[in-house]
Amino acid sequence: MKWTHFSAPGAASAYGILEADDRIREVRGTPFGAHEPTGAVHKLAEVKIEVPLLPRTFYAAGLNYVKHIREYAQLTGNPVAEPKQADIGYRAVNALVAHDEAVVIPSDAKQVEYEGELVVVIGKQARHLSEADALSCVLGYTIGNDVSERLWQASDRTFWRSKNTDTFKPMGPWIETEFDLGAAETTVRLNGEVRTHFRTADMLFDIRTFISRMTHYLTLYPGDVIWMGTDGKSPQLKVGDVVEVEITGLGCLRNHFVAEAAGRKSTA
Amino acid sequence: MKWTHFSAPGAASAYGILEADDRIREVRGTPFGAHEPTGAVHKLAEVKIEVPLLPRTFYAAGLNYVKHIREYAQLTGNPVAEPKQADIGYRAVNALVAHDEAVVIPSDAKQVEYEGELVVVIGKQARHLSEADALSCVLGYTIGNDVSERLWQASDRTFWRSKNTDTFKPMGPWIETEFDLGAAETTVRLNGEVRTHFRTADMLFDIRTFISRMTHYLTLYPGDVIWMGTDGKSPQLKVGDVVEVEITGLGCLRNHFVAEAAGRKSTA
Repeated sequence: MKWTHFSAPGAASAYGILEADDRIREVRGTPFGAHEPTGAVHKLAEVKIEVPLLPRTFYAAGLNYVKHIREYAQLTGNPVAEPKQADIGYRAVNALVAHDEAVVIPSDAKQVEYEGELVVVIGKQARHLSEADALSCVLGYTIGNDVSERLWQASDRTFWRSKNTDTFKPMGPWIETEFDLGAAETTVRLNGEVRTHFRTADMLFDIRTFISRMTHYLTLYPGDVIWMGTDGKSPQLKVGDVVEVEITGLGCLRNHFVAEAAGRKSTA
Repeated sequence: MKWTHFSAPGAASAYGILEADDRIREVRGTPFGAHEPTGAVHKLAEVKIEVPLLPRTFYAAGLNYVKHIREYAQLTGNPVAEPKQADIGYRAVNALVAHDEAVVIPSDAKQVEYEGELVVVIGKQARHLSEADALSCVLGYTIGNDVSERLWQASDRTFWRSKNTDTFKPMGPWIETEFDLGAAETTVRLNGEVRTHFRTADMLFDIRTFISRMTHYLTLYPGDVIWMGTDGKSPQLKVGDVVEVEITGLGCLRNHFVAEAAGRKSTA
Protein backbone atom coordinates (compact mmCIF):
# COMPACT_ATOMS: atom_id res chain seq x y z
CA MET A 1 0.00 0.00 0.00
CA LYS A 2 1.34 3.43 -0.94
CA TRP A 3 0.65 6.21 1.59
CA THR A 4 0.79 9.51 -0.26
CA HIS A 5 0.93 12.97 1.30
CA PHE A 6 -0.42 15.46 -1.23
CA SER A 7 -2.13 18.80 -1.83
CA ALA A 8 -5.06 19.12 -4.18
CA PRO A 9 -5.43 22.58 -5.78
CA GLY A 10 -6.76 25.07 -3.24
CA ALA A 11 -6.93 22.52 -0.40
CA ALA A 12 -4.84 21.79 2.69
CA SER A 13 -2.47 18.84 2.44
CA ALA A 14 -3.88 15.39 3.24
CA TYR A 15 -2.88 11.75 3.23
CA GLY A 16 -4.31 9.26 0.81
CA ILE A 17 -3.73 5.79 -0.59
CA LEU A 18 -2.44 5.50 -4.12
CA GLU A 19 -4.51 3.13 -6.26
CA ALA A 20 -3.70 1.72 -9.72
CA ASP A 21 -0.71 4.12 -9.79
CA ASP A 22 -2.82 7.02 -11.01
CA ARG A 23 -5.39 8.02 -8.39
CA ILE A 24 -5.34 8.79 -4.67
CA ARG A 25 -8.12 7.80 -2.28
CA GLU A 26 -8.05 10.59 0.33
CA VAL A 27 -8.23 9.83 4.06
CA ARG A 28 -8.93 11.85 7.18
CA GLY A 29 -6.06 11.25 9.63
CA THR A 30 -2.53 9.97 9.05
CA PRO A 31 -0.77 6.63 8.51
CA PHE A 32 0.47 6.94 12.12
CA GLY A 33 -2.94 6.93 13.79
CA ALA A 34 -6.65 6.59 13.18
CA HIS A 35 -7.73 7.28 9.61
CA GLU A 36 -10.80 6.75 7.43
CA PRO A 37 -11.66 7.46 3.79
CA THR A 38 -13.17 10.89 3.14
CA GLY A 39 -14.78 9.61 -0.04
CA ALA A 40 -12.71 11.99 -2.20
CA VAL A 41 -10.56 10.55 -4.99
CA HIS A 42 -7.91 12.62 -6.80
CA LYS A 43 -6.01 12.00 -10.01
CA LEU A 44 -2.31 11.69 -9.16
CA ALA A 45 -1.47 13.90 -12.14
CA GLU A 46 -3.59 16.74 -10.71
CA VAL A 47 -2.14 17.00 -7.17
CA LYS A 48 1.16 18.20 -5.74
CA ILE A 49 3.14 15.46 -4.00
CA GLU A 50 4.29 16.66 -0.55
CA VAL A 51 7.12 15.41 1.69
CA PRO A 52 5.70 12.10 3.08
CA LEU A 53 6.20 13.30 6.68
CA LEU A 54 8.20 15.74 8.81
CA PRO A 55 10.18 13.28 10.94
CA ARG A 56 10.16 13.63 14.69
CA THR A 57 13.80 12.51 14.68
CA PHE A 58 15.66 12.25 11.39
CA TYR A 59 18.21 9.40 11.66
CA ALA A 60 20.82 8.54 9.02
CA ALA A 61 23.21 5.58 8.92
CA GLY A 62 25.83 7.51 6.94
CA LEU A 63 28.68 5.23 5.84
CA ASN A 64 26.93 1.89 5.31
CA TYR A 65 28.01 0.48 1.92
CA VAL A 66 31.57 -0.66 1.30
CA LYS A 67 32.35 1.05 -2.02
CA HIS A 68 31.05 4.36 -0.72
CA ILE A 69 33.18 4.04 2.42
CA ARG A 70 36.35 3.69 0.33
CA GLU A 71 35.46 6.83 -1.62
CA TYR A 72 34.73 8.74 1.57
CA ALA A 73 38.14 7.71 2.93
CA GLN A 74 39.71 9.06 -0.25
CA LEU A 75 37.79 12.34 0.11
CA THR A 76 38.87 12.98 3.66
CA GLY A 77 42.39 11.56 3.30
CA ASN A 78 41.52 9.48 6.36
CA PRO A 79 42.47 5.80 5.95
CA VAL A 80 39.80 4.69 8.47
CA ALA A 81 38.24 1.44 7.32
CA GLU A 82 34.64 0.27 7.71
CA PRO A 83 32.68 1.35 10.79
CA LYS A 84 33.01 -1.34 13.46
CA GLN A 85 29.48 -0.95 14.83
CA ALA A 86 26.11 0.45 13.78
CA ASP A 87 26.40 4.04 15.12
CA ILE A 88 23.46 6.07 13.82
CA GLY A 89 23.75 9.74 12.83
CA TYR A 90 21.31 12.59 12.18
CA ARG A 91 20.01 14.85 9.43
CA ALA A 92 17.71 17.89 9.80
CA VAL A 93 14.08 18.57 8.94
CA ASN A 94 14.72 22.06 7.51
CA ALA A 95 16.43 20.46 4.49
CA LEU A 96 13.52 18.27 3.32
CA VAL A 97 11.87 18.84 -0.05
CA ALA A 98 9.31 16.73 -1.90
CA HIS A 99 9.39 14.77 -5.14
CA ASP A 100 9.62 17.18 -8.10
CA GLU A 101 10.70 20.13 -5.93
CA ALA A 102 13.95 21.98 -6.63
CA VAL A 103 17.27 21.47 -4.87
CA VAL A 104 18.86 24.92 -4.55
CA ILE A 105 22.65 24.99 -4.99
CA PRO A 106 24.05 27.79 -2.78
CA SER A 107 26.17 30.37 -4.59
CA ASP A 108 29.25 29.35 -2.57
CA ALA A 109 28.83 25.58 -3.02
CA LYS A 110 31.56 23.98 -5.11
CA GLN A 111 31.03 20.21 -5.25
CA VAL A 112 27.45 19.00 -4.89
CA GLU A 113 26.70 15.27 -5.25
CA TYR A 114 23.72 12.94 -4.87
CA GLU A 115 23.34 9.91 -2.60
CA GLY A 116 20.36 7.64 -3.37
CA GLU A 117 19.13 5.96 -0.19
CA LEU A 118 16.49 3.63 1.17
CA VAL A 119 14.45 5.31 3.93
CA VAL A 120 12.79 3.34 6.75
CA VAL A 121 9.66 4.97 8.21
CA ILE A 122 8.85 4.06 11.83
CA GLY A 123 5.16 3.46 12.58
CA LYS A 124 5.11 2.26 16.19
CA GLN A 125 6.82 3.36 19.40
CA ALA A 126 9.59 0.84 20.10
CA ARG A 127 12.20 0.08 22.76
CA HIS A 128 14.49 -2.94 23.36
CA LEU A 129 13.67 -4.79 20.14
CA SER A 130 15.67 -7.91 19.27
CA GLU A 131 16.97 -8.22 15.72
CA ALA A 132 14.26 -10.82 15.11
CA ASP A 133 11.52 -8.37 16.17
CA ALA A 134 13.15 -5.22 14.82
CA LEU A 135 10.90 -4.74 11.78
CA SER A 136 7.73 -4.87 13.92
CA CYS A 137 7.97 -1.08 14.43
CA VAL A 138 8.34 -0.26 10.71
CA LEU A 139 5.39 1.29 8.85
CA GLY A 140 7.02 1.28 5.43
CA TYR A 141 9.76 2.56 3.15
CA THR A 142 10.45 5.52 0.91
CA ILE A 143 13.39 7.02 -1.00
CA GLY A 144 15.84 9.75 0.00
CA ASN A 145 18.52 11.72 -1.82
CA ASP A 146 21.19 12.70 0.72
CA VAL A 147 22.53 15.66 -1.32
CA SER A 148 26.01 16.59 -0.05
CA GLU A 149 28.56 19.36 -0.61
CA ARG A 150 31.83 17.45 -0.41
CA LEU A 151 34.19 20.34 0.38
CA TRP A 152 32.07 21.42 3.37
CA GLN A 153 31.78 17.78 4.38
CA ALA A 154 35.59 17.62 4.55
CA SER A 155 36.19 21.08 6.08
CA ASP A 156 33.44 21.46 8.70
CA ARG A 157 33.35 19.98 12.18
CA THR A 158 29.81 18.65 11.58
CA PHE A 159 27.60 17.89 8.55
CA TRP A 160 25.36 20.91 9.21
CA ARG A 161 25.70 22.70 5.84
CA SER A 162 27.29 19.91 3.78
CA LYS A 163 24.20 17.76 4.31
CA ASN A 164 21.50 20.01 5.82
CA THR A 165 21.48 23.18 3.74
CA ASP A 166 17.84 24.00 2.89
CA THR A 167 16.50 21.70 0.08
CA PHE A 168 19.42 19.20 0.36
CA LYS A 169 17.16 16.34 1.54
CA PRO A 170 14.61 15.26 -1.11
CA MET A 171 12.37 12.48 0.27
CA GLY A 172 9.48 10.61 -1.35
CA PRO A 173 7.44 10.19 -3.41
CA TRP A 174 5.35 8.13 -0.96
CA ILE A 175 5.56 5.48 1.80
CA GLU A 176 5.24 1.89 0.52
CA THR A 177 4.19 -0.60 3.22
CA GLU A 178 5.08 -3.72 1.19
CA PHE A 179 8.74 -4.04 0.24
CA ASP A 180 11.06 -6.90 -0.75
CA LEU A 181 14.49 -5.62 0.28
CA GLY A 182 16.24 -8.76 -0.97
CA ALA A 183 15.01 -8.17 -4.51
CA ALA A 184 15.53 -4.38 -4.52
CA GLU A 185 18.03 -2.44 -6.60
CA THR A 186 18.82 1.24 -6.28
CA THR A 187 19.35 3.05 -9.58
CA VAL A 188 20.30 6.72 -9.87
CA ARG A 189 19.89 8.51 -13.19
CA LEU A 190 21.42 11.89 -14.02
CA ASN A 191 19.56 13.64 -16.84
CA GLY A 192 18.04 10.31 -17.85
CA GLU A 193 21.29 8.31 -17.90
CA VAL A 194 22.04 5.59 -15.31
CA ARG A 195 25.11 6.67 -13.33
CA THR A 196 24.85 4.61 -10.12
CA HIS A 197 23.40 1.16 -9.55
CA PHE A 198 23.63 -1.15 -6.53
CA ARG A 199 21.83 -3.88 -4.65
CA THR A 200 19.86 -2.04 -1.96
CA ALA A 201 20.45 -4.86 0.56
CA ASP A 202 24.28 -4.69 0.27
CA MET A 203 24.50 -2.79 3.56
CA LEU A 204 27.35 -3.16 5.99
CA PHE A 205 24.82 -3.12 8.90
CA ASP A 206 21.27 -4.00 7.94
CA ILE A 207 17.99 -2.48 9.12
CA ARG A 208 17.44 -5.08 11.86
CA THR A 209 20.92 -4.46 13.27
CA PHE A 210 20.42 -0.69 13.39
CA ILE A 211 16.92 -0.81 14.93
CA SER A 212 17.88 -3.40 17.55
CA ARG A 213 21.03 -1.51 18.56
CA MET A 214 19.31 1.89 18.53
CA THR A 215 16.39 0.72 20.67
CA HIS A 216 18.79 -0.66 23.25
CA TYR A 217 19.45 2.99 24.21
CA LEU A 218 16.57 5.03 22.80
CA THR A 219 12.89 4.98 21.98
CA LEU A 220 11.83 5.08 18.34
CA TYR A 221 8.58 7.00 17.77
CA PRO A 222 5.98 6.98 14.98
CA GLY A 223 7.21 9.43 12.37
CA ASP A 224 10.92 8.84 12.94
CA VAL A 225 12.84 7.98 9.77
CA ILE A 226 16.13 6.15 9.24
CA TRP A 227 18.07 6.80 6.03
CA MET A 228 20.16 3.70 5.33
CA GLY A 229 23.16 5.12 3.42
CA THR A 230 24.30 4.89 -0.19
CA ASP A 231 26.77 3.05 -2.39
CA GLY A 232 28.96 4.17 -5.26
CA LYS A 233 30.10 7.59 -6.36
CA SER A 234 28.12 10.53 -7.68
CA PRO A 235 29.30 12.82 -10.44
CA GLN A 236 29.49 16.51 -9.57
CA LEU A 237 26.06 18.10 -10.06
CA LYS A 238 25.36 21.45 -11.69
CA VAL A 239 22.47 23.84 -12.22
CA GLY A 240 19.92 22.35 -14.62
CA ASP A 241 20.63 18.72 -13.70
CA VAL A 242 17.76 16.31 -12.97
CA VAL A 243 18.44 13.41 -10.57
CA GLU A 244 16.13 10.41 -10.31
CA VAL A 245 16.56 7.84 -7.53
CA GLU A 246 14.59 4.67 -8.21
CA ILE A 247 14.31 1.70 -5.83
CA THR A 248 12.58 -1.47 -7.01
CA GLY A 249 9.00 -1.48 -5.74
CA LEU A 250 9.17 1.98 -4.13
CA GLY A 251 8.94 4.25 -7.16
CA CYS A 252 11.16 7.08 -8.31
CA LEU A 253 12.19 10.29 -6.50
CA ARG A 254 12.98 13.01 -9.05
CA ASN A 255 14.41 16.48 -8.33
CA HIS A 256 15.96 19.24 -10.41
CA PHE A 257 18.88 21.42 -9.35
CA VAL A 258 18.66 25.21 -9.57
CA ALA A 259 20.91 28.14 -8.66
CA GLU A 260 20.34 30.20 -5.54
CA ALA A 261 18.44 33.36 -6.49
CA ALA A 262 20.35 36.62 -6.40
CA GLY A 263 19.20 39.30 -3.92
CA ARG A 264 18.38 36.97 -1.02
CA LYS A 265 16.03 38.56 1.43
CA SER A 266 16.60 38.66 5.16
CA THR A 267 13.51 37.45 7.03
CA ALA A 268 12.51 37.20 10.67
CA MET B 1 7.94 36.74 30.91
CA LYS B 2 8.24 33.06 31.75
CA TRP B 3 6.40 30.68 29.37
CA THR B 4 5.69 27.48 31.26
CA HIS B 5 4.52 24.20 29.77
CA PHE B 6 2.76 22.20 32.49
CA SER B 7 0.16 19.60 33.36
CA ALA B 8 -2.43 20.18 36.05
CA PRO B 9 -3.68 16.99 37.76
CA GLY B 10 -6.05 15.11 35.43
CA ALA B 11 -5.72 17.64 32.59
CA ALA B 12 -3.89 17.71 29.24
CA SER B 13 -0.68 19.74 29.16
CA ALA B 14 -1.01 23.48 28.45
CA TYR B 15 1.11 26.60 28.27
CA GLY B 16 0.86 29.38 30.80
CA ILE B 17 2.67 32.45 32.04
CA LEU B 18 4.41 32.25 35.40
CA GLU B 19 3.47 35.11 37.73
CA ALA B 20 5.11 36.09 41.02
CA ASP B 21 7.17 32.87 40.80
CA ASP B 22 4.37 30.79 42.32
CA ARG B 23 1.34 30.71 40.04
CA ILE B 24 0.69 30.04 36.35
CA ARG B 25 -1.90 31.92 34.28
CA GLU B 26 -3.03 29.29 31.75
CA VAL B 27 -3.40 30.17 28.07
CA ARG B 28 -5.07 28.54 25.08
CA GLY B 29 -2.49 28.21 22.30
CA THR B 30 1.31 28.29 22.42
CA PRO B 31 4.10 30.87 22.67
CA PHE B 32 4.74 30.25 18.96
CA GLY B 33 1.35 31.40 17.71
CA ALA B 34 -1.98 32.90 18.73
CA HIS B 35 -2.78 32.52 22.43
CA GLU B 36 -5.24 33.95 24.94
CA PRO B 37 -5.83 33.50 28.69
CA THR B 38 -8.26 30.71 29.58
CA GLY B 39 -8.99 32.38 32.91
CA ALA B 40 -7.55 29.41 34.85
CA VAL B 41 -4.75 30.04 37.34
CA HIS B 42 -2.70 27.20 38.85
CA LYS B 43 -0.34 27.10 41.81
CA LEU B 44 3.14 26.25 40.53
CA ALA B 45 3.57 23.82 43.42
CA GLU B 46 0.51 21.84 42.30
CA VAL B 47 1.36 21.20 38.63
CA LYS B 48 3.90 19.02 36.83
CA ILE B 49 6.44 21.03 34.80
CA GLU B 50 6.72 19.59 31.27
CA VAL B 51 9.51 19.91 28.68
CA PRO B 52 9.08 23.52 27.41
CA LEU B 53 8.73 22.30 23.80
CA LEU B 54 9.59 19.39 21.50
CA PRO B 55 11.98 21.12 19.10
CA ARG B 56 11.39 20.86 15.39
CA THR B 57 15.17 20.76 14.94
CA PHE B 58 17.41 20.36 17.99
CA TYR B 59 20.68 22.22 17.35
CA ALA B 60 23.73 22.16 19.64
CA ALA B 61 26.93 24.19 19.41
CA GLY B 62 28.99 21.49 21.09
CA LEU B 63 32.54 22.72 21.80
CA ASN B 64 32.04 26.42 22.46
CA TYR B 65 33.90 27.33 25.67
CA VAL B 66 37.71 27.29 25.85
CA LYS B 67 38.26 25.33 29.09
CA HIS B 68 35.82 22.62 27.99
CA ILE B 69 37.55 22.31 24.61
CA ARG B 70 40.89 21.59 26.31
CA GLU B 71 39.29 18.87 28.41
CA TYR B 72 37.61 17.34 25.38
CA ALA B 73 40.97 17.24 23.59
CA GLN B 74 42.41 15.43 26.61
CA LEU B 75 39.51 12.93 26.55
CA THR B 76 39.89 12.04 22.89
CA GLY B 77 43.70 12.25 22.79
CA ASN B 78 43.16 14.56 19.84
CA PRO B 79 45.27 17.73 20.06
CA VAL B 80 42.81 19.69 17.87
CA ALA B 81 42.56 23.25 19.10
CA GLU B 82 39.52 25.52 19.14
CA PRO B 83 36.96 25.19 16.33
CA LYS B 84 37.82 27.71 13.59
CA GLN B 85 34.22 28.49 12.65
CA ALA B 86 30.72 28.20 14.12
CA ASP B 87 29.68 24.75 12.83
CA ILE B 88 26.42 23.73 14.51
CA GLY B 89 25.64 20.15 15.55
CA TYR B 90 22.52 18.23 16.53
CA ARG B 91 20.88 16.45 19.45
CA ALA B 92 17.70 14.31 19.42
CA VAL B 93 14.17 14.83 20.73
CA ASN B 94 13.83 11.29 22.13
CA ALA B 95 16.30 12.19 24.89
CA LEU B 96 14.42 15.18 26.36
CA VAL B 97 13.08 15.10 29.92
CA ALA B 98 11.57 17.88 32.00
CA HIS B 99 12.67 19.65 35.18
CA ASP B 100 12.45 17.24 38.14
CA GLU B 101 12.25 14.14 35.92
CA ALA B 102 14.81 11.34 36.26
CA VAL B 103 17.88 10.78 34.11
CA VAL B 104 18.23 7.02 33.68
CA ILE B 105 21.82 5.73 33.66
CA PRO B 106 21.98 2.67 31.35
CA SER B 107 23.37 -0.48 32.95
CA ASP B 108 26.34 -0.49 30.55
CA ALA B 109 27.21 3.21 30.99
CA LYS B 110 30.54 3.82 32.71
CA GLN B 111 31.26 7.54 32.82
CA VAL B 112 28.25 9.86 32.88
CA GLU B 113 28.76 13.61 33.25
CA TYR B 114 26.68 16.80 33.18
CA GLU B 115 27.02 19.83 30.90
CA GLY B 116 25.04 22.91 31.99
CA GLU B 117 24.05 24.96 28.94
CA LEU B 118 22.17 28.05 27.86
CA VAL B 119 19.37 27.16 25.40
CA VAL B 120 18.11 29.61 22.76
CA VAL B 121 14.47 29.09 21.71
CA ILE B 122 13.58 30.30 18.20
CA GLY B 123 10.21 32.07 17.89
CA LYS B 124 10.12 33.27 14.27
CA GLN B 125 10.99 31.74 10.91
CA ALA B 126 14.32 33.26 9.83
CA ARG B 127 16.71 33.20 6.87
CA HIS B 128 19.74 35.34 5.94
CA LEU B 129 19.95 37.29 9.21
CA SER B 130 22.94 39.58 9.75
CA GLU B 131 24.68 39.39 13.12
CA ALA B 132 23.05 42.73 13.98
CA ASP B 133 19.57 41.30 13.31
CA ALA B 134 20.24 37.75 14.53
CA LEU B 135 18.33 37.99 17.82
CA SER B 136 15.13 39.15 16.07
CA CYS B 137 14.07 35.49 15.62
CA VAL B 138 14.61 34.53 19.29
CA LEU B 139 11.57 33.97 21.51
CA GLY B 140 13.50 33.38 24.72
CA TYR B 141 15.94 31.27 26.68
CA THR B 142 15.91 28.20 28.86
CA ILE B 143 18.41 25.79 30.44
CA GLY B 144 19.72 22.43 29.22
CA ASN B 145 21.82 19.66 30.73
CA ASP B 146 23.71 17.92 27.91
CA VAL B 147 24.26 14.67 29.84
CA SER B 148 27.08 12.68 28.19
CA GLU B 149 28.66 9.25 28.50
CA ARG B 150 32.32 10.01 27.85
CA LEU B 151 33.53 6.53 26.85
CA TRP B 152 30.83 6.23 24.17
CA GLN B 153 31.60 9.80 23.12
CA ALA B 154 35.21 8.73 22.51
CA SER B 155 34.47 5.30 20.99
CA ASP B 156 31.47 5.85 18.71
CA ARG B 157 31.46 7.36 15.24
CA THR B 158 28.63 9.73 16.24
CA PHE B 159 27.16 11.13 19.49
CA TRP B 160 23.99 9.00 19.14
CA ARG B 161 24.15 7.13 22.49
CA SER B 162 26.78 9.22 24.29
CA LYS B 163 24.49 12.26 24.09
CA ASN B 164 21.06 11.01 22.96
CA THR B 165 20.28 7.98 25.09
CA ASP B 166 16.69 8.35 26.39
CA THR B 167 16.51 10.90 29.30
CA PHE B 168 20.01 12.35 28.61
CA LYS B 169 18.68 15.79 27.67
CA PRO B 170 16.93 17.58 30.57
CA MET B 171 15.56 20.96 29.41
CA GLY B 172 13.63 23.64 31.31
CA PRO B 173 12.11 24.63 33.63
CA TRP B 174 10.51 27.33 31.39
CA ILE B 175 11.22 29.81 28.56
CA GLU B 176 12.23 33.30 29.80
CA THR B 177 11.71 36.03 27.19
CA GLU B 178 13.79 38.68 29.05
CA PHE B 179 17.45 37.78 29.54
CA ASP B 180 20.67 39.73 30.18
CA LEU B 181 23.36 37.43 28.78
CA GLY B 182 26.17 39.81 29.74
CA ALA B 183 25.23 39.57 33.42
CA ALA B 184 24.50 35.84 33.44
CA GLU B 185 26.48 33.17 35.25
CA THR B 186 26.00 29.42 34.92
CA THR B 187 26.30 27.47 38.16
CA VAL B 188 26.06 23.69 38.41
CA ARG B 189 25.49 22.05 41.80
CA LEU B 190 25.95 18.36 42.50
CA ASN B 191 23.99 17.24 45.56
CA GLY B 192 23.75 20.85 46.67
CA GLU B 193 27.45 21.70 46.29
CA VAL B 194 28.71 24.08 43.58
CA ARG B 195 31.02 22.12 41.27
CA THR B 196 31.06 24.22 38.09
CA HIS B 197 30.72 27.96 37.62
CA PHE B 198 31.33 30.12 34.55
CA ARG B 199 30.27 33.34 32.83
CA THR B 200 27.51 32.28 30.44
CA ALA B 201 28.67 34.80 27.81
CA ASP B 202 32.23 33.41 27.65
CA MET B 203 31.46 31.59 24.41
CA LEU B 204 33.97 31.07 21.64
CA PHE B 205 31.24 31.91 19.07
CA ASP B 206 28.29 33.88 20.40
CA ILE B 207 24.59 33.52 19.67
CA ARG B 208 24.58 36.19 16.95
CA THR B 209 27.48 34.52 15.16
CA PHE B 210 25.78 31.12 15.18
CA ILE B 211 22.36 32.37 14.06
CA SER B 212 23.77 34.56 11.30
CA ARG B 213 26.00 31.78 9.94
CA MET B 214 23.30 29.11 10.26
CA THR B 215 20.67 31.19 8.45
CA HIS B 216 23.07 31.79 5.57
CA TYR B 217 22.41 28.15 4.63
CA LEU B 218 19.22 27.11 6.41
CA THR B 219 15.87 28.30 7.66
CA LEU B 220 15.27 28.49 11.40
CA TYR B 221 11.68 27.71 12.40
CA PRO B 222 9.57 28.53 15.47
CA GLY B 223 10.25 25.75 17.96
CA ASP B 224 13.85 25.12 16.93
CA VAL B 225 16.32 25.27 19.84
CA ILE B 226 20.06 25.93 19.94
CA TRP B 227 22.05 24.63 22.92
CA MET B 228 25.09 26.88 23.30
CA GLY B 229 27.68 24.53 24.85
CA THR B 230 29.25 24.33 28.28
CA ASP B 231 32.41 25.21 30.14
CA GLY B 232 34.47 23.42 32.74
CA LYS B 233 34.57 19.80 33.77
CA SER B 234 31.93 17.60 35.40
CA PRO B 235 32.62 15.00 38.04
CA GLN B 236 31.51 11.46 37.22
CA LEU B 237 27.84 11.04 38.14
CA LYS B 238 26.30 8.07 39.91
CA VAL B 239 22.87 6.73 40.84
CA GLY B 240 21.26 8.91 43.49
CA ASP B 241 22.97 12.14 42.41
CA VAL B 242 20.96 15.35 41.98
CA VAL B 243 22.25 17.92 39.46
CA GLU B 244 21.02 21.51 39.42
CA VAL B 245 21.91 23.85 36.56
CA GLU B 246 21.17 27.49 37.40
CA ILE B 247 21.57 30.43 35.02
CA THR B 248 21.09 33.97 36.33
CA GLY B 249 17.59 35.14 35.50
CA LEU B 250 16.44 31.86 33.95
CA GLY B 251 15.86 29.72 37.03
CA CYS B 252 17.18 26.30 37.98
CA LEU B 253 16.90 22.97 36.11
CA ARG B 254 17.05 20.09 38.59
CA ASN B 255 17.22 16.35 37.78
CA HIS B 256 18.03 13.21 39.71
CA PHE B 257 19.95 10.23 38.36
CA VAL B 258 18.55 6.70 38.68
CA ALA B 259 19.60 3.22 37.58
CA GLU B 260 18.05 1.50 34.59
CA ALA B 261 15.39 -0.89 35.82
CA ALA B 262 16.12 -4.59 35.57
CA GLY B 263 13.90 -6.71 33.27
CA ARG B 264 13.51 -4.21 30.47
CA LYS B 265 10.49 -4.91 28.35
CA SER B 266 10.57 -5.11 24.58
CA THR B 267 7.83 -2.93 23.06
CA ALA B 268 6.55 -2.24 19.54
